Amino acid sequence: MPIYRRVALLGLGLIAGSMALAMRRGGLAGEITGTARSAETRAIAKELGLCDRVYDTAAEAVAGADLVVLAVPIGAMGALAAEIAPHLEPGATVTDVGSVKRAVIEAVAPHIPEAVHFIPGHPLAGTEHSGPRSGFAELFDNRWCILTPAEDADPQAVDRLRRLWEAMGAHIDCMDAAHHDLVLAVTSHTPHLIAYTMVGVADDLRRVTDSEVIKYSAAGFRDFTRIAASDPTMWRDVFLTNKDATLEILGRFTEELFALQRAIRTGDGDHLHAYFTRTRAIRRGIVEAGQDVDAPDFGRVKAGR
Amino acid sequence: MPIYRRVALLGLGLIAGSMALAMRRGGLAGEITGTARSAETRAIAKELGLCDRVYDTAAEAVAGADLVVLAVPIGAMGALAAEIAPHLEPGATVTDVGSVKRAVIEAVAPHIPEAVHFIPGHPLAGTEHSGPRSGFAELFDNRWCILTPAEDADPQAVDRLRRLWEAMGAHIDCMDAAHHDLVLAVTSHTPHLIAYTMVGVADDLRRVTDSEVIKYSAAGFRDFTRIAASDPTMWRDVFLTNKDATLEILGRFTEELFALQRAIRTGDGDHLHAYFTRTRAIRRGIVEAGQDVDAPDFGRVKAGR
Repeated sequence: MPIYRRVALLGLGLIAGSMALAMRRGGLAGEITGTARSAETRAIAKELGLCDRVYDTAAEAVAGADLVVLAVPIGAMGALAAEIAPHLEPGATVTDVGSVKRAVIEAVAPHIPEAVHFIPGHPLAGTEHSGPRSGFAELFDNRWCILTPAEDADPQAVDRLRRLWEAMGAHIDCMDAAHHDLVLAVTSHTPHLIAYTMVGVADDLRRVTDSEVIKYSAAGFRDFTRIAASDPTMWRDVFLTNKDATLEILGRFTEELFALQRAIRTGDGDHLHAYFTRTRAIRRGIVEAGQDVDAPDFGRVKAGR
Repeated sequence: MPIYRRVALLGLGLIAGSMALAMRRGGLAGEITGTARSAETRAIAKELGLCDRVYDTAAEAVAGADLVVLAVPIGAMGALAAEIAPHLEPGATVTDVGSVKRAVIEAVAPHIPEAVHFIPGHPLAGTEHSGPRSGFAELFDNRWCILTPAEDADPQAVDRLRRLWEAMGAHIDCMDAAHHDLVLAVTSHTPHLIAYTMVGVADDLRRVTDSEVIKYSAAGFRDFTRIAASDPTMWRDVFLTNKDATLEILGRFTEELFALQRAIRTGDGDHLHAYFTRTRAIRRGIVEAGQDVDAPDFGRVKAGR
């Protein structure tokens, strides 16, 4: 039994593509329409059969939809909301999948007509791959999806969206947008910036060649390259729109890094050992919570064997 | 046809355990002896049959060996070398598997008798698990092992050790110890310190709970927790003994991080986008070189499914 009659996916990358496949897996949408700005993406979506119908414009895609999903980079959300606003059905729900919530709410909410529900959302799932070919139905299984509805949001509309995400495999938490942005600055945005930085440094050294960095990457570095291979436009927008929380956590990070750097310089082995023992426990917690695999090395099937 | 008649493994953790299994897989050692400082580790090694004989002391383990492998934390290598020196066979080779080479050479070389070859080595392989139960025969397959022999090292002895590592699945590079330490500061030591720092920061915030950090870790953070779960003693010793190179790369890292932080603060999206595009290329190089898997998310088999 479908949860929505007609779902419109605006933007057809990794997340929307995976939503289409997860909705089909569960029979959760009567019909799926979609659009993307680039003609190439639309052509691939048609070839893959991701949607029942792929339209050239967002206005056409949202007509008659009872759920509209904004799945474009954060910087493009405001203009997209303005574009679709006149074409939204009364009683429809608009949601999004952006990694930052306050900025999306500021950009999108003013355009949403009174008769339409706006329920911001963020599935904490993804891979380093992007584009319509990278989606898969299992992406959200056992992952968390955070909803940040306004205090006066319609409870039935929130509940319906929650049921859709749960049926796509996710667990749901609700919180306010500011707390979401802080939590994600810790668990996602700062780690990504740090990974990008480390990879940039390695690429930039004159005394160590790129080929050495690549050959010897299995000693730890390669783990950073995965998230530093994520979509540049998406991540640019994340940092520009979650500036305050990211800068706050970066400040804490450098403070802590300087303390460890000082321990190295002064030869304070006890400080280092105690620190490294404490961080081990968090990994155990993540594995026990089913949020990562216990297999060594992420269970990598060894490349090149 | 065995490459060494009798191999003595001193320290029976992840690396030595994997060497034992890889040597057995290839029939590369006539006999394998071993010891470890802790009685518990020795008992586990006996139970697993890692070695043909497990001795209580290093002196007994090295007697009659033509290859002796120092596989203990770097800080313990000097004392171990002093302990075994009187018991080494003339013509034998001593090697090690430490992650830092200059400090190991300084600590070990003075104890090695003239008739014994000392050929420092470092297999760039490992997992976040440690101890005798964590070894597996395939650990070195398609990984690099760096040897840093002195300029006057015996070419035949170096070649023999090279053949052992190659027969255990590894590729070999030779370089001088100082260059090794710099390269590893980039590809391993600094990434580990940064991962430890990020995990420590997340654990330490009052406004974001540990349970939030754990639940929402799949958004990027969990990748850092794997290497931050590595053995604390080993890593303390790495940072204390590769101090200069690590501090140099950390300096470059913070410089670069501050530049990105400034781009976030000033809203310089072009700088961020260009940076994030450049770092993508390194990942492709690593995958093409067979040093990581191409599958999304390291090919993780999803936890909890």
